[in-house]
Amino acid sequence: MTTPAKKAVVLLSGGLDSTTVLAMAKARGFDPVCLCIAYGQRHAVELERAKKVAASMGVQDVRVVTIDLRAIGGSALTAPMPVPKDRDERTMSSGIPITYVPARNTVFLALALGLAEVVGATDLFIGVNAVDYSGYPDCRPEFIHEFERLANLATKAGVEGARFTVHAPLSGMTKAEIIRAGVALGVDYGLTHSCYDPDPQGRACGHCDSCLLRKRGFAEAGVPDPTPDAT
Amino acid sequence: MTTPAKKAVVLLSGGLDSTTVLAMAKARGFDPVCLCIAYGQRHAVELERAKKVAASMGVQDVRVVTIDLRAIGGSALTAPMPVPKDRDERTMSSGIPITYVPARNTVFLALALGLAEVVGATDLFIGVNAVDYSGYPDCRPEFIHEFERLANLATKAGVEGARFTVHAPLSGMTKAEIIRAGVALGVDYGLTHSCYDPDPQGRACGHCDSCLLRKRGFAEAGVPDPTPDAT
Repeated sequence: MTTPAKKAVVLLSGGLDSTTVLAMAKARGFDPVCLCIAYGQRHAVELERAKKVAASMGVQDVRVVTIDLRAIGGSALTAPMPVPKDRDERTMSSGIPITYVPARNTVFLALALGLAEVVGATDLFIGVNAVDYSGYPDCRPEFIHEFERLANLATKAGVEGARFTVHAPLSGMTKAEIIRAGVALGVDYGLTHSCYDPDPQGRACGHCDSCLLRKRGFAEAGVPDPTPDAT
Repeated sequence: MTTPAKKAVVLLSGGLDSTTVLAMAKARGFDPVCLCIAYGQRHAVELERAKKVAASMGVQDVRVVTIDLRAIGGSALTAPMPVPKDRDERTMSSGIPITYVPARNTVFLALALGLAEVVGATDLFIGVNAVDYSGYPDCRPEFIHEFERLANLATKAGVEGARFTVHAPLSGMTKAEIIRAGVALGVDYGLTHSCYDPDPQGRACGHCDSCLLRKRGFAEAGVPDPTPDAT
């Protein structure tokens, strides 16, 4: 008799990073429960891609939590502000961009923690990346470690002695390294979506920070860019 | 010229505890921004009461964030499970009740933190109470302290040197003490709602843990119970 795989909650956006993380969680032997969050983002096409990605990896349990962050606002991703386009690398990496969603990863990890309690998991996976997005405070390893501490205090499982682990396997990786790792695990990046500002048909703009970082990642990885709508 | 009051984000449910906290935040000189969270709870009547409570205290800025936690489930408050009725005190205070919503206060504080960033506040108020609800892990002072640490790491403001404070002024108080403090501040408890399982007209059931604790609180405080629908 084989032991059933240990469950893990994987935050899945349908983007390049979280898709790679899902493949990594599976490669480490976990049985993933995917949590997709519809948070009023402009790029809601991500969610459709997330479902396709999960299906392509044979994941059965995909939950979608809808949360309308527009009442909070404060970000170009959820409020009516223009998404920056064609920024050079120096501008992109200086300061916190206006596409930062206030406390987003805290909210997302909190939801993942709630789901983990319900499905009996103590492992959470999140695709934060401190190299390409150094501007987001809630992508830093110290934030992730602090959230683990909080998780142990916040939950019934923690009170009963469970110890939560927040896996952020992309933390020290460049976009090119992430892409190479994903390709090695058989990820089909053609299913994923990265653009912050897609057109009504869901096609990538090719000019926002996320599109630029994605393009550069494929170029640096020496991997053909499978983005169907690449400009 | 007077200095404008410092803003604070107050989590307001429309219940007895958070209403008292709002009065306390005002008494401490803060300009409250209220955050109400519609999380798929059975007792959505709370939200209507929250708006009345805020209006009664002259609060202009009330935000409602809608989040559907039913995709996560796991609690009698959001999933189709019966709400326990007529439990005695010993049963109520032993273990974590099924009305516990997994990671709820982590989610709520994360949302309050996001709003705080947007409105430029570093003070958050939450009506957790470790005396009457000792069964909820995310009502304990150690959880609140840990969240403050996380807030400083999670946010743009924290990175820039701001220090967040999570005020939990009810933490060591009994329900009777809370009611007395609120009455002294002029709170109209007739506007508030506590029941976990109201009827379709929003009337309190009188038998869930929350109704029982509320009744006992008024009795112990020696204050007439103004609940319009008290059974």
